Amino acid sequence: MKRSAVPPPVTRVLAAAEGWLPRRMGAVEERLAELAHEGGERLSAQAGATLAAGGKRLRPMLVLVCAGDGAAETATRAATAIELVHMATLVHDDVLDAAPLRRGSPTVVARAGRQVATSVGDLLFSRAFAELAAPSPDSTRQVALLAGASVGLARGELAQRRDAFDLEISGQRYLERCRLKTGSLFECACLIGADPGVDGAASLRTYGAEIGLAFQLLDDVLDVSGPPERTGKALGTDLLDGTVTMPFILARERDPALAAIELRGLDAAAAADVCARIEATGALDEVRADARARVERAKDALAAAPLDAGRRELLTMVADGVVERYS
Amino acid sequence: MKRSAVPPPVTRVLAAAEGWLPRRMGAVEERLAELAHEGGERLSAQAGATLAAGGKRLRPMLVLVCAGDGAAETATRAATAIELVHMATLVHDDVLDAAPLRRGSPTVVARAGRQVATSVGDLLFSRAFAELAAPSPDSTRQVALLAGASVGLARGELAQRRDAFDLEISGQRYLERCRLKTGSLFECACLIGADPGVDGAASLRTYGAEIGLAFQLLDDVLDVSGPPERTGKALGTDLLDGTVTMPFILARERDPALAAIELRGLDAAAAADVCARIEATGALDEVRADARARVERAKDALAAAPLDAGRRELLTMVADGVVERYS
Repeated sequence: MKRSAVPPPVTRVLAAAEGWLPRRMGAVEERLAELAHEGGERLSAQAGATLAAGGKRLRPMLVLVCAGDGAAETATRAATAIELVHMATLVHDDVLDAAPLRRGSPTVVARAGRQVATSVGDLLFSRAFAELAAPSPDSTRQVALLAGASVGLARGELAQRRDAFDLEISGQRYLERCRLKTGSLFECACLIGADPGVDGAASLRTYGAEIGLAFQLLDDVLDVSGPPERTGKALGTDLLDGTVTMPFILARERDPALAAIELRGLDAAAAADVCARIEATGALDEVRADARARVERAKDALAAAPLDAGRRELLTMVADGVVERYS
Repeated sequence: MKRSAVPPPVTRVLAAAEGWLPRRMGAVEERLAELAHEGGERLSAQAGATLAAGGKRLRPMLVLVCAGDGAAETATRAATAIELVHMATLVHDDVLDAAPLRRGSPTVVARAGRQVATSVGDLLFSRAFAELAAPSPDSTRQVALLAGASVGLARGELAQRRDAFDLEISGQRYLERCRLKTGSLFECACLIGADPGVDGAASLRTYGAEIGLAFQLLDDVLDVSGPPERTGKALGTDLLDGTVTMPFILARERDPALAAIELRGLDAAAAADVCARIEATGALDEVRADARARVERAKDALAAAPLDAGRRELLTMVADGVVERYS
């Protein structure tokens, strides 16, 4: 699975936030660095690549904003745990893709090989759950949420593999896969730090699910439209992998000849041609519009969420950022 | 990493036990089957291979015996969770070794490829923690134990990778690696179901750690001495992988020429020759004696453990079984 090289503007949200958010994000960063260096000096050689794998820390930021500045220390632990699971999936993805670079840095698999990278991913998964297993009345709920989300991520990967090279998968099936492979961790991030006893906490789930889906939809648009110098990867990487996404699904209804292409054995030039044909149908605009509508629904859901005005504003910025950076 | 094809006599222990143990083992088996089939019909195609991957359910049996017949339903969940983590590591190991068979059945990676197998392993890991996240006063302790053991397994794999092809690693380093990659899950199995408030629970940790180490030591002896028709794999598989184990470490002190061999580029015939030289030094007897001593220490530890006579007898049978099946 590939993910965007252009994360939403976490930096800008941090700048707009009161001091507690940058401080807590700093605590998460410190804890991640601590864990990365815990495995002895040789493992630490991979620590840089592993730490970088998570990117801009969007998910832990969601945890902390949804939890609020009054949240207990468990929110910091939950934010760390979410990012560890995210990193674990990226490290394993890079093994499967034999990816040399992520965000411009060598991946763990490129530095240390498949065996080390697979074990590093397993280690990050295990650490995530260890992080949540602190005496706290909320620990069991947090473990259930994170384990459920991790199950979702793995099932999403399996669904993608199962559907690979199938040009006829439905839009519904595509969305279900995205809910699993991307939405579940966003949802979890929004719920895991929030006080479950407060009215409206469930609307944070809607917010997380919708921005997760918007994020993935726009990521899939970028794979078709690039430009490569901005995304850092070739056009049509998904198609070359056999991954059929919403842009293709909508385009094939408008240009039936697309349904007849042979995905297996496609080369980079042919994949770029297919991308141009998808774009020519106008399908990308439709996908972008769907993503924008989801971002609006996410923001609407915030009205019912147990948030003060400041945090609602930060989550609105995150939601807008998801669209803006892709438009 | 390879593991023994000859598990200790779980069947015999079950036959000796009162009805509650087979019943609970049946419940674990049912739950594992349920989870394996939960992912939809296509995933279920891998379910057989995945379920078989764990083998004879030694670890869940340890959980249930240590927990006792009065244990709450959480013991069954913990037993299931331990086996899920064990299965996850085996599925990932098979990906890395590109192993075609495990216990005579096609592996997940052989049936479905690396991508599916990596995700199936991640799914099993996640399910393990989901299993423990039930409302129970003991859930946090159980998650901490299992996450700690999973961290140990991954660190053990990393240590093995780091030490690969190094003929000079010390016996101490080898034992530390075995404690991580094998002992930690045995230890966890013995502690996770036991009542932590009862005197002597810690002696179950000693029992688990020692039989885990004995298990690994004897597994490593089998890799040198076979016979292949019994172990189901060629002699010297560890050496071909670059894995230096206790038999080699002791042998190289008696036959210094062994320290000069070139592990990289070793072929199967040369590996079999090295095995013969190791055996000729008498090192295998020394390793077997160490394993037997550990089994004795494990049994001694049971004297202080909070067990009735029946369960102590069952754990004694398990310990003896570890030695017996390898002798």
